[in-house]
Amino acid sequence: MKQTQIMLSHGSGGLESNSLIEGIIYEILGEVLVHNGEDAGVFESKMPLAISTDSYVISPIFFPGGDIGKLCVCGSSNDVAMRGAKPMYLTLGFILEEGFSIESLKKILYSIKQEALIGGLKILSGDTKVVPKGSADKIFINTTAVGQIHNAEYSVKNLALGDEIIVSGAIGTHGAVIFCQRNEINLQSDLQSDCVQLYPMLEGLKECKIHSMRDATRGGLAAVLNEWANTACVEIEINEPSIPILPQVKGVCEILGLEALSLANEGVCVIATPQGESQKILQILRSHSLGKNACVIGRVTKKADNAKNARVILSNAWGARRYVEYPQGELLPRIC
Amino acid sequence: MKQTQIMLSHGSGGLESNSLIEGIIYEILGEVLVHNGEDAGVFESKMPLAISTDSYVISPIFFPGGDIGKLCVCGSSNDVAMRGAKPMYLTLGFILEEGFSIESLKKILYSIKQEALIGGLKILSGDTKVVPKGSADKIFINTTAVGQIHNAEYSVKNLALGDEIIVSGAIGTHGAVIFCQRNEINLQSDLQSDCVQLYPMLEGLKECKIHSMRDATRGGLAAVLNEWANTACVEIEINEPSIPILPQVKGVCEILGLEALSLANEGVCVIATPQGESQKILQILRSHSLGKNACVIGRVTKKADNAKNARVILSNAWGARRYVEYPQGELLPRIC
Repeated sequence: MKQTQIMLSHGSGGLESNSLIEGIIYEILGEVLVHNGEDAGVFESKMPLAISTDSYVISPIFFPGGDIGKLCVCGSSNDVAMRGAKPMYLTLGFILEEGFSIESLKKILYSIKQEALIGGLKILSGDTKVVPKGSADKIFINTTAVGQIHNAEYSVKNLALGDEIIVSGAIGTHGAVIFCQRNEINLQSDLQSDCVQLYPMLEGLKECKIHSMRDATRGGLAAVLNEWANTACVEIEINEPSIPILPQVKGVCEILGLEALSLANEGVCVIATPQGESQKILQILRSHSLGKNACVIGRVTKKADNAKNARVILSNAWGARRYVEYPQGELLPRIC
Repeated sequence: MKQTQIMLSHGSGGLESNSLIEGIIYEILGEVLVHNGEDAGVFESKMPLAISTDSYVISPIFFPGGDIGKLCVCGSSNDVAMRGAKPMYLTLGFILEEGFSIESLKKILYSIKQEALIGGLKILSGDTKVVPKGSADKIFINTTAVGQIHNAEYSVKNLALGDEIIVSGAIGTHGAVIFCQRNEINLQSDLQSDCVQLYPMLEGLKECKIHSMRDATRGGLAAVLNEWANTACVEIEINEPSIPILPQVKGVCEILGLEALSLANEGVCVIATPQGESQKILQILRSHSLGKNACVIGRVTKKADNAKNARVILSNAWGARRYVEYPQGELLPRIC
């Protein structure tokens, strides 16, 4: 009988583990896997390296615009790209629930492979654990990405008075899509998660002056800007009408009473750049299909004289100004 | 009211996430953390690097001789040490169940810190996810370790006819301890998991000729030797009386009908070394407290002419010989 579900013995380290790993995982991942049957993968780099880890626990595991496999590659790849690095290598750690569908696992593995091919990423190490039914929900994946830093390292430490704040695309889309899925809201539209690898769009920015870059995942744009303001002790002001938001996302926010600024993104980054540099950067971003909606949304307006003044201010079309709070509470667990 | 349990909002990416990460995780990990508040950590290396990832799902999370925090550092550190690398850096990914005890999380963080200090390891990147109650069991941790390869890279590809097989210590102890815990067998002894970082013992082996090295975790010694035999297409013969096993572990195996060869270890490695080199290696291993029981247990006896002959043979004290099978089925999920 053909096995259709993950069994506990697939995580034993014995014969069945071997059949899962060699027969399914290695088989599907194929050429993106640097497969050597050893405990650890080996690589070299003459340049400084950026490393970032993330665990992915998203629910549902398949969603419009992606799945947990695509997400785990994009998410970790983007995190190293945010340091000015070219993503190069990945590790993959699977935690599978006993009874999980092997068909679903295969789909996820194909997504991982496809994204690794898109990004030119090699998988250097992997691990598979199986836990009894009820001890985990379907599948969790941890990916650690390693990238080579070719240029100056981007860091929030560089943030300076007068810096312009750019977003690379429309915000809140991933969060809105997952919200609709989880609340069983049937969107009469083709709205899809923005889940994507950002490095191909960012590659052209090598010669540009960039102070800091961050992808606006959990907590959205509001979390990134508040973190920047707090860490660099500055005031940031953003201009509401200039923030790109898809009309469908605006609609979802209105129906559900959400704030698009706090919704998660999986393919949008925020860039802080010294005055005078933004036009060049926008031109490069907009020349890439992912960056068509890139625009300047605000500026670092003040050095804060104390922690209380390190804040984010939103001005609307009528000139009214309010604070953008650090997102609080949890509206939607398992967003990524 | 003081918060005693993990809440969903601790994983939101917002204010409460921040309080968990800065107030508890950063606070406890302290100097072992290269904390820069960025998406990715940065490091450099002139030497080749080994990288290995593992997810830890052990149950119970606290056990005689360690906890999931100690285990996650030792396990990943050992995996890179097996390639002849000095473990240098770690990433940490936590998946926490809503309602998990913050007191337990703190204990685990202290264990992680202590092991990182012992191994001189720096934590470069971390991630914390919280899933709703029932979607995970207490805590899972993923660690990815990176190490610098100072000498020749050890690899199963080097395995050759005549190679001697060394184990660095008594086998099966971690597996036996977890078995007793899970079966609520009250051991009238001080038997503790062998969970430990192996690199300090192995550091002295830099000048020795070593073909391959593996830590015998899930699937135990039986899995390592079968993998070696299959990958290198050789026959390996081991001698039962020479295999070190603690009397308490022998007792547990007799009571529960277990095979010590298939029990997991978390602080024992298997070394394949060319003929004539083993005495030098044993001397170095035995000079370290972890290697007091190190000994030669067998040899690569034949080049196999086909996959069927690539096997592991155990000879007992009376000269009887039998195959050591690749462990099959799953006796004990969540051993690591």
